[in-house]
Amino acid sequence: MQVAGEMIIGGKALTGKEGTIKAIDPSRNAEIEPAFGLASAADLEQAAQLADAAFDPYRNTSLEVRAKFLETIADRIMDLGPALIERAMQETGLPQARLEGERGRTVNQLKLFAKVVRDGRFQSATLDSALPERTPPRPDLRLRKIGLGPVAVFGASNFPLAFSVAGGDTASALAAGCPVIVKAHSAHLGTSELVGKAVAKAVEESGLPAGVFSMIIGSGQTVGQALVSHPAIKAVGFTGSRAGGLALMKTAAERKEPIPVYAEMSSINPVFLLPGALANDKLPQAFADSLTMGAGQFCTNPGLLIGIKGDKLQAFVDATAGTIGAKAASTMLTPGIHKAYLSGVKNLAGVDGVQQVAAGQGTEAPCAAQAFLYQVPAKKFLADDKLEGEIFGPTSLLVVAEDEAELLAVANHVEGQLTGAVHATADDRDLAARLLPILERKVGRILFNGFGTGVEVAHAMVHGGPFPSTSDSRTTSVGASAIDRFLRPVSYQDVPSYLLPTSLADDNPEKLPRIVNGDLVWNA
Amino acid sequence: MQVAGEMIIGGKALTGKEGTIKAIDPSRNAEIEPAFGLASAADLEQAAQLADAAFDPYRNTSLEVRAKFLETIADRIMDLGPALIERAMQETGLPQARLEGERGRTVNQLKLFAKVVRDGRFQSATLDSALPERTPPRPDLRLRKIGLGPVAVFGASNFPLAFSVAGGDTASALAAGCPVIVKAHSAHLGTSELVGKAVAKAVEESGLPAGVFSMIIGSGQTVGQALVSHPAIKAVGFTGSRAGGLALMKTAAERKEPIPVYAEMSSINPVFLLPGALANDKLPQAFADSLTMGAGQFCTNPGLLIGIKGDKLQAFVDATAGTIGAKAASTMLTPGIHKAYLSGVKNLAGVDGVQQVAAGQGTEAPCAAQAFLYQVPAKKFLADDKLEGEIFGPTSLLVVAEDEAELLAVANHVEGQLTGAVHATADDRDLAARLLPILERKVGRILFNGFGTGVEVAHAMVHGGPFPSTSDSRTTSVGASAIDRFLRPVSYQDVPSYLLPTSLADDNPEKLPRIVNGDLVWNA
Repeated sequence: MQVAGEMIIGGKALTGKEGTIKAIDPSRNAEIEPAFGLASAADLEQAAQLADAAFDPYRNTSLEVRAKFLETIADRIMDLGPALIERAMQETGLPQARLEGERGRTVNQLKLFAKVVRDGRFQSATLDSALPERTPPRPDLRLRKIGLGPVAVFGASNFPLAFSVAGGDTASALAAGCPVIVKAHSAHLGTSELVGKAVAKAVEESGLPAGVFSMIIGSGQTVGQALVSHPAIKAVGFTGSRAGGLALMKTAAERKEPIPVYAEMSSINPVFLLPGALANDKLPQAFADSLTMGAGQFCTNPGLLIGIKGDKLQAFVDATAGTIGAKAASTMLTPGIHKAYLSGVKNLAGVDGVQQVAAGQGTEAPCAAQAFLYQVPAKKFLADDKLEGEIFGPTSLLVVAEDEAELLAVANHVEGQLTGAVHATADDRDLAARLLPILERKVGRILFNGFGTGVEVAHAMVHGGPFPSTSDSRTTSVGASAIDRFLRPVSYQDVPSYLLPTSLADDNPEKLPRIVNGDLVWNA
Repeated sequence: MQVAGEMIIGGKALTGKEGTIKAIDPSRNAEIEPAFGLASAADLEQAAQLADAAFDPYRNTSLEVRAKFLETIADRIMDLGPALIERAMQETGLPQARLEGERGRTVNQLKLFAKVVRDGRFQSATLDSALPERTPPRPDLRLRKIGLGPVAVFGASNFPLAFSVAGGDTASALAAGCPVIVKAHSAHLGTSELVGKAVAKAVEESGLPAGVFSMIIGSGQTVGQALVSHPAIKAVGFTGSRAGGLALMKTAAERKEPIPVYAEMSSINPVFLLPGALANDKLPQAFADSLTMGAGQFCTNPGLLIGIKGDKLQAFVDATAGTIGAKAASTMLTPGIHKAYLSGVKNLAGVDGVQQVAAGQGTEAPCAAQAFLYQVPAKKFLADDKLEGEIFGPTSLLVVAEDEAELLAVANHVEGQLTGAVHATADDRDLAARLLPILERKVGRILFNGFGTGVEVAHAMVHGGPFPSTSDSRTTSVGASAIDRFLRPVSYQDVPSYLLPTSLADDNPEKLPRIVNGDLVWNA
């Protein structure tokens, strides 16, 4: 399939007339053909109206139809074949194997949500029997969760497939019964068009209203803000910068009807190196691998290490100078990200008391990032909030604590994070036990003897965390429970049986596990 | 127990030094002794610091300790005996039977949450097994929900017990493992003191850290806003006016770390009278009873009726003139609420096209409210958003539609509501089926052949709804799932067994139903 420079509005491919933009190949810092037309206010209005009109028929499809639709999207993405991977490589500078892996993850996410939909537990079906003899009589009460309404999705620059047009936010919103309008990310326009057309094909094949899915092309500041402001939009999924997330949160809060924004923003993912674990001679290599994977462009990249001063920590630093020193520079996603990386590193290096302790290989290639490890005393870190800023790319800061108390003080000091890692052996048990409750309050995922990169799409995953890592710590954007973000409960009191939804019918035709008079009842 | 004019900070009763206020007996419009001291910024700071310090030890108590604590609060409230009811009657003008019923509800809510805590399902325990042979290997992942942190609770004027110091928000936050700081409502200061001391006694008897509960006295605009701004506070529960709720939402959104606000604000609870149901000759009495119960001071009061023009509707109106006409005026909660009621009725009566069709009995008693029913053509209602404003008290507006299409247009037009009622018989089946999906998008609870007043504390209850009825349609403030508001998920990856919480242990000692590799596993 050729890339045509088109967006999708309610199933129809069309070229926007409000100017054009082109994608950029970061490895050459050069534009890629063709030009993409930008959406007008009227295009956006049409997408929103179609989404609103599609909501009732779509949410009232059977669980099977909805599940099959998600699987069909997965199939139509695979049908795109190598053309998708080739275009994504050009637009992102990411290697083939990584993009093929990411495509697999994207397809598996869609299939996971198909399973979640078929299971039906997401509806939280709950029944309380009428007690007509009680004083006062208790009515018949039944509760289920339904979709919030049309959802606006803003894809991430760093996952052109898994967090983009048919990524986690789109899959979970569609699973919840919500139509989706994606604002395509300018860093991978052609990839977005290809995937968008695959989704539109699946909508048509599944016999669903065309408004279930649209994908618009335009700037975040105009089209993106207008999308979040539109009365038909009832929730927002976003993955990106803190500034971008905060701007959408503000817009959403200032609407006549405020709506939830699920923004996954910035995180430096502290890694605590407890004394016993420093003896692990695989640690320096594992750290360097995690730091430089995907040019460090992961929300779970290990941007902060914390260790206790001493020979063992010094030995780790020395070994890490070698493992990082062997890492080649790699192409970043966009010239803008590369520029911000250079500036972030320069600012960090310029802070009094901050010292460079490891550097990867340099390069003259456009948009290529060199890896770095810096070091700073904990006292300095605790006194300077600037040192907590995210540097998006392969640079990390080692905070050197004088003792256990100072290490715990750093844990208490950091902002909310997606992940917190602890490297520990049984010898570190006491210190780890003191660290754990602090991390429970600070992060969404606590991990031992590993790094946060590599986010498993599973039922027990939390890719979320206290502000500012996300806008809403009550949720996750990866894993099965991401569907919960787009649902709200509705209670049905004394509603006649012929009007009740299937999930709440007396005979439980879907064989759902349900809460009946407070007890879990399971007919499976 | 004497009312002493005190607040409670971390278990200690003390008298604020920032001025005084007194409670008011609305039936006499006269002050009641004693004076209550107002909290200083330092008092608030102390309560917040104690709550923060209490969070870790409290959330890590066993489920049994936490459940027993909630039951002990219920016992200590009952121990207050008639003194509590007498003081509440004086402060609110509500009759003894109503307050005794409300006390029963308050105590039952605490006991329901004790059951929810013991059940343990609220933790959403979820496990995914490690797959070490997979490429890449899958880690061991386990998820549970924990409390958000200290919660600020703002009680309602209209439920001095069930939505106040130890009401639904407090009970559900404590159940979730969150310390609570209540800002006492100025409409029932003595009632608040008595209940606050009962809670403090239960904290002490249960051997919990004193910071688990504080109750401060002060103005909403200063102390209340300062409480919501405090960094230690991680969520807010509020029941009250739309202006009050919006102000707290704004403060919470503008914090350095924004926090969730669960504000239950205003609702006019549309009641759709479908043609077949108008033949029910009990309807006029049932409506008048619901309208005037508790002087109409319920968030679920039927403030809007919608019917289709014709002889049957006219017969309903004529009969309702009689049933409302027989209703005596009754004392409202505060002089301020009474004044706002008079002004709301006057404004409604002054709108061109609005016509009074029923009036209850008048009175000269202070703060007593006369009931009214007004009527307006649907075209007029659809054109004037002011007619949708809540009048807190026993006044309702009948919207007369020309036909079914206009009735459905009114349903589509109204703002988000707590409840939507449909009066219908089998003859109305087609129209009811068209109305239902509209109501699903507009309200939290759909009820048939009844009125929204009387909110059952049950598992399938939703007391919530789309904005502006609440700030967050994803939740309920009444019923078992109210606990979900104060929880967030944490994922544990490869965490050693000796550090795992009990709910995630391999041997499942609490016999929780858990999701294991995507399937519900239940050992009960």
